[in-house]
Amino acid sequence: MIKNIYKTSLSLLTDLYQLTMTYGYWKKGIHNNYASFNLFFRKNPFGSGYAVACGLENIINVLESFKFTKSDLDYLRTLKTDKGTNLFSKEFISFLSNIKFECDIEAVEEGRVVFANEPIIRVNGPIYQCQLIESAILNIFNFNSLIATKSARINHVSNGDPILEFGLRRAQGIDGALSASRSSYIGGTSKTSNVLAGKIYGIPVSGTHSHSWVMAFDSELSSFRNYAEIMPDNTILLVDTFDTIEGVKNAITVAKEMEKKDKKIIGVRIDSGDLAYLSKKIRKILDDNSLKYVKIIASNDIDEHILESLKLQGSKISVWGIGTRLVTAYDNPSLGAVYKLSAIKDSNGKWINKIKLSEQKIKINNPGVHQVRRFKNNSKFLGDMIYDINNTNLSNNMVDPNDSTKSKSFKDDIDYENLLIPIFKKGKCTYEKPSLNVIKERLKSDLSHLDESHKRLKNPHIYPVGLEKKLFDQKQSMIIKLRKN
Amino acid sequence: MIKNIYKTSLSLLTDLYQLTMTYGYWKKGIHNNYASFNLFFRKNPFGSGYAVACGLENIINVLESFKFTKSDLDYLRTLKTDKGTNLFSKEFISFLSNIKFECDIEAVEEGRVVFANEPIIRVNGPIYQCQLIESAILNIFNFNSLIATKSARINHVSNGDPILEFGLRRAQGIDGALSASRSSYIGGTSKTSNVLAGKIYGIPVSGTHSHSWVMAFDSELSSFRNYAEIMPDNTILLVDTFDTIEGVKNAITVAKEMEKKDKKIIGVRIDSGDLAYLSKKIRKILDDNSLKYVKIIASNDIDEHILESLKLQGSKISVWGIGTRLVTAYDNPSLGAVYKLSAIKDSNGKWINKIKLSEQKIKINNPGVHQVRRFKNNSKFLGDMIYDINNTNLSNNMVDPNDSTKSKSFKDDIDYENLLIPIFKKGKCTYEKPSLNVIKERLKSDLSHLDESHKRLKNPHIYPVGLEKKLFDQKQSMIIKLRKN
Repeated sequence: MIKNIYKTSLSLLTDLYQLTMTYGYWKKGIHNNYASFNLFFRKNPFGSGYAVACGLENIINVLESFKFTKSDLDYLRTLKTDKGTNLFSKEFISFLSNIKFECDIEAVEEGRVVFANEPIIRVNGPIYQCQLIESAILNIFNFNSLIATKSARINHVSNGDPILEFGLRRAQGIDGALSASRSSYIGGTSKTSNVLAGKIYGIPVSGTHSHSWVMAFDSELSSFRNYAEIMPDNTILLVDTFDTIEGVKNAITVAKEMEKKDKKIIGVRIDSGDLAYLSKKIRKILDDNSLKYVKIIASNDIDEHILESLKLQGSKISVWGIGTRLVTAYDNPSLGAVYKLSAIKDSNGKWINKIKLSEQKIKINNPGVHQVRRFKNNSKFLGDMIYDINNTNLSNNMVDPNDSTKSKSFKDDIDYENLLIPIFKKGKCTYEKPSLNVIKERLKSDLSHLDESHKRLKNPHIYPVGLEKKLFDQKQSMIIKLRKN
Repeated sequence: MIKNIYKTSLSLLTDLYQLTMTYGYWKKGIHNNYASFNLFFRKNPFGSGYAVACGLENIINVLESFKFTKSDLDYLRTLKTDKGTNLFSKEFISFLSNIKFECDIEAVEEGRVVFANEPIIRVNGPIYQCQLIESAILNIFNFNSLIATKSARINHVSNGDPILEFGLRRAQGIDGALSASRSSYIGGTSKTSNVLAGKIYGIPVSGTHSHSWVMAFDSELSSFRNYAEIMPDNTILLVDTFDTIEGVKNAITVAKEMEKKDKKIIGVRIDSGDLAYLSKKIRKILDDNSLKYVKIIASNDIDEHILESLKLQGSKISVWGIGTRLVTAYDNPSLGAVYKLSAIKDSNGKWINKIKLSEQKIKINNPGVHQVRRFKNNSKFLGDMIYDINNTNLSNNMVDPNDSTKSKSFKDDIDYENLLIPIFKKGKCTYEKPSLNVIKERLKSDLSHLDESHKRLKNPHIYPVGLEKKLFDQKQSMIIKLRKN
């Protein structure tokens, strides 16, 4: 089954340059140089005040089976340069065949709120191994975290109304749908329409009937009657095949017939038209017919902004079906996490910090081997400080990496936790993967510790993330030194 | 390997309502009613004048293994309604275990240009089977066609410059990356960075080194020297790790050293900064150093609009690396194809046409069992006419389904071809899947038959797609009749 795509070796799910660089390091005999890489993103998606870390379980699954298979190696042997020469030597292919994964990985757990510029996955290991796994880690983290964040935003404004995720048909491919269902559920959706996601991930599934069901019978009323007869405990009637209000009247007829059998229909569903106007009109008709218990389920290109607007308009929707705009993160369909080298050990085993320059300050990476300390009090997260684990006598004073005039100090006795948790030690996974519901609850808890001002959809208050003062000073002096050269 | 995800049964890759409806049809004893469904989209993506049909091979792979496995059925057995009753009966699970796929499918081949509102996949078969496969077909078609269209647009403005697809790290999941590599290649890209896509689909792969390679050595110059030494036939040097122009100078030093060994570096790559300004500056420095053969490869959030603008600005980029905006179709990340019931056979085997109403005219489906006739002369496609195969004495007169004042007639002796080709007959695939390069060439040929005015990026001339006059009249009278009721 699909789950196996993560259990199988996906070692070739990488950019070719990771292999050509590995070839280079190996030929120069420096492939075992020990390096530290960080995964982070530079901007929260959707103009959000936070993002949700997601995808670690799939990353672990991919890395646990990191190994070039015979067919992988056979394929690599066929590769040629534009000039017709072999891209890789036989000896190198033989080297690849013997690779044993041996990296140390620390990561922020799934379901935690995270912020721009802080390390979320740290990979320490032989430089070539750190690089070979880069592309797959980025792919999985970027997409899963993007969708979990989108889902959290939508659920924030739904304010307790259940959200059904309906995205399979419009998602970006099969895994685009499956991973989106999982990430959406972590972000707060209640159920998915995707049965395979239900099977693989244990997400509750949801579904009743479509327009074609109605069209397959002689009349809408008879189609509703038949549906309710067959699925008396799962009756949600789609009322907009011909005329929405007439559809509601037919649904009422069936609801009344069901009441005589001591059954209650769950709701009516609309998938087109003006949802604010129609939901109010439908609510009134239902209430006038003593059907207050019948819910209104609505879908039609809803995202967090439309949902918020429908709430403000007093719409009477109580369950939301959300597809395309959630599972593709329509208004911002890619999270731009990057993965950057930040330190290499020298021949004496001493870490040498590394930096890359750029015209754009935000594109200059933070040097060092990092950990993130999240300061908090009983009720709130107060700020995240990135520090170099090789620095001693850390201060509780941090500086905004992109604006040195902004700094923040925390009291010495303040509570904190370190966000990066051991996941792999010398290539072995030491982390016990939590259940999906544990991850979902973790996010709920984290969001409850985040000030409301950071959760606003538009122009949220920016959560403080800074470099510990020593690290900040080191970075500054490295930049100045490099620019002078 | 990943390829197997399509070879394995993905029968649960469906929306739950397909299964609840199947349960209903089966309980009513009408599951074998013979139906006709059409897949089509209502709007070309990106404001494009056309779209590219793509994904059929993957659809075939999924359908060829359509079968509920024991573990699928075990899962379905566990499903409950909100009221705690079993969702499906034992007898129904047993029915599902014996399903044999028996649909007839006709489809437009991959790599053909297609247009809004015309049927692209037509599924005829027992109504429940038509529905069970709907969600997977839509998922695969929508994403693959979206990316092939985006790629065709980018390649149209690149005007022969090679495009390298770099999207793995930013794609929407693993299949999001792999399917995007395949679809992009069909649309016109030359190579992919995704090694697994190279292995699975036979797409040429491309890659050299990243910033971390440069940072792993004591100096940029030594990193370039080492790279060129190791990969003399595949040397593209990334010059923007510290300072782009200094990087170019280091690349020139290495290029000159390589010339002494009778080797030529391929190019320099830039991944940041003002690409128009920098490429012109770099070109001049390279030319002044008699390195006219050294290409400039550029990447940095490029799409068709930025590429066109860079061309207009006289940039000197000759190879384009395109990632995020291609593989996620960033500005329009979902194609909205739908799949609608359009006819059911009655007990005498006579097709009864079906229609669904909507307040929005564009959301009313076309009734009937369809084929599409593409009229053409030697050099150009002239228009596509949708007709009902059960109508006799077809005219060559078609009417715009969304504007009855617009019609178009073709001469009786005009050349044409039917776009829907048999793919499955009674559940067996009868279609020989072409190679990727055949599909790529088919698209090239189709695009050469499309007038330039339809290929404009913005506000393209609209290609004529209409309903054959009889079908149009039938549809009108069905709408009027339904509205009267």
